[in-house]
Amino acid sequence: MVRIVEVGPRDGLQNEALPITTPVKAAFVAALVGAGLKEIEVSSFVSPKWVPQLGDAVELFEMLRVQFPVEPPYFSALVPNEKGLERAIPSGVKRIAVFTAASDQFTQKNINMGVDESLDVIATVVDAFRKAVPDGFVRGYVSTAFECPCAGKVPYADTARVAGILHKKIGVDEISLGDTIGVAVPAEVAELHDYVTADIPKKKIAWHFHDTRGTAIANVAKALDLGYEVFDSSAAGLGGCPYAPGAGGNLATEDLVYFLERSGIATGVDLAKLARASLPVLEALGRRPAARSQLAALAE
Amino acid sequence: MVRIVEVGPRDGLQNEALPITTPVKAAFVAALVGAGLKEIEVSSFVSPKWVPQLGDAVELFEMLRVQFPVEPPYFSALVPNEKGLERAIPSGVKRIAVFTAASDQFTQKNINMGVDESLDVIATVVDAFRKAVPDGFVRGYVSTAFECPCAGKVPYADTARVAGILHKKIGVDEISLGDTIGVAVPAEVAELHDYVTADIPKKKIAWHFHDTRGTAIANVAKALDLGYEVFDSSAAGLGGCPYAPGAGGNLATEDLVYFLERSGIATGVDLAKLARASLPVLEALGRRPAARSQLAALAE
Repeated sequence: MVRIVEVGPRDGLQNEALPITTPVKAAFVAALVGAGLKEIEVSSFVSPKWVPQLGDAVELFEMLRVQFPVEPPYFSALVPNEKGLERAIPSGVKRIAVFTAASDQFTQKNINMGVDESLDVIATVVDAFRKAVPDGFVRGYVSTAFECPCAGKVPYADTARVAGILHKKIGVDEISLGDTIGVAVPAEVAELHDYVTADIPKKKIAWHFHDTRGTAIANVAKALDLGYEVFDSSAAGLGGCPYAPGAGGNLATEDLVYFLERSGIATGVDLAKLARASLPVLEALGRRPAARSQLAALAE
Repeated sequence: MVRIVEVGPRDGLQNEALPITTPVKAAFVAALVGAGLKEIEVSSFVSPKWVPQLGDAVELFEMLRVQFPVEPPYFSALVPNEKGLERAIPSGVKRIAVFTAASDQFTQKNINMGVDESLDVIATVVDAFRKAVPDGFVRGYVSTAFECPCAGKVPYADTARVAGILHKKIGVDEISLGDTIGVAVPAEVAELHDYVTADIPKKKIAWHFHDTRGTAIANVAKALDLGYEVFDSSAAGLGGCPYAPGAGGNLATEDLVYFLERSGIATGVDLAKLARASLPVLEALGRRPAARSQLAALAE
């Protein structure tokens, strides 16, 4: 049973300078739910000082609680530290994500601490979260799992070490391995797989591919062949797009859904509804649709 | 030994309304050669009435002969009929491509005849070409190998039948199977492979994937796994782009080269030079670079 973790509202929007209003975000999330997505990372309880775009996480969760009063889908949020957790818990968040990377230079640049220090912070956050929300779910991101924009090629042993600590010592429920700059090819997915499965069961591992160089679906295909079942993607390919409109950043959920469905793997997602879900956000950002399958679906 | 057949100057430009001058085309081809590409389909000897953009095929071959007087790379041209061949032969063309499809509705719409009728035309053209150029090379395109924009899903038996006639009866040197509207996924590549290899040796088959839905590289990866070695692609992803700028049409040569090189398969192509080769053409078309690896390479 393949699971798609939609990260567009958080990962997709976090680097966008033009502010998206909370109602537009809530409508975006609701449209994603309407398209059939069941797991959505909707925001981050990061300091609004650092990421103003996601400064409305409390309000967004409040709005979503009103929209989805009974049996809501799995809405999660990134929680970078204890301060964030203090805001997340009263918001009723049952699923959190924590963030680190395989490369010290990347965490230094992004969160101003080394990888091991970030793992200490994560341990504290996860402990506190488990106490507050015993039936909660924790996902741990390992960015730069293949290569770091600052440090270059990352040894797979480093990625496996960080993933191993998240799994064994911190006890997260799921680890998402991120090809942050979209460089990986299937052979590398197979190599990293060999390293990480020495210590971690496959079913605890998700893959977070970027399509910067057109390889994301090939990597998903390889991971499926290897027996993995959880993939992150972002509606309309929002986010992770450092070059230009049209360049691939995050793997577009549309492309992932198209590929899975056409390969005979049911996703429960309606591609046409999905293709339309992000249009108001793209409009607010002054962007045209760019995800390949989104364009194809919108043209039909 | 993997071979890349660059189709940008022909397939990429044939649907572009804004005229590109012959010197810009010649410079484009020269830049592609400079980047390391060894096989380039540079134009079509189609009637200038039907495709004005490629009406300068004779002049382009003349210009290229001046630029590459000794041991030129493999420059080929599409030859749709005997009239075209009459212009191609005096131009010194040693490699031609002929065109048909697996779907009658597609050939009717594009060349105003059914598939079998087109195979008759091809047989006449190839016979005449063999007589005029005994050491020549003929490639046969089978478009809509998976699905037709008019008729929908194409039975693999139909594709295999057309490919079989090109191989056995007409005796082309290579058959390029085209996913004309970019719908295929790797499982379908494997299925079509089963059909076509009943009659045709694998080494005679090339794959022409489109990236309309982000699956092209995944399909290349599957074909490589199955033992194929020839892939068509278009610099900057030019052509086959029916939806909008940024949408994938033809598989971009940049993405193919990136994927192959990163997978440990040498191509002899310099990605940075390749990424720059199409910039003057894109500028003349009022387009921004859109191929994913092209953008990534240009940003480096």
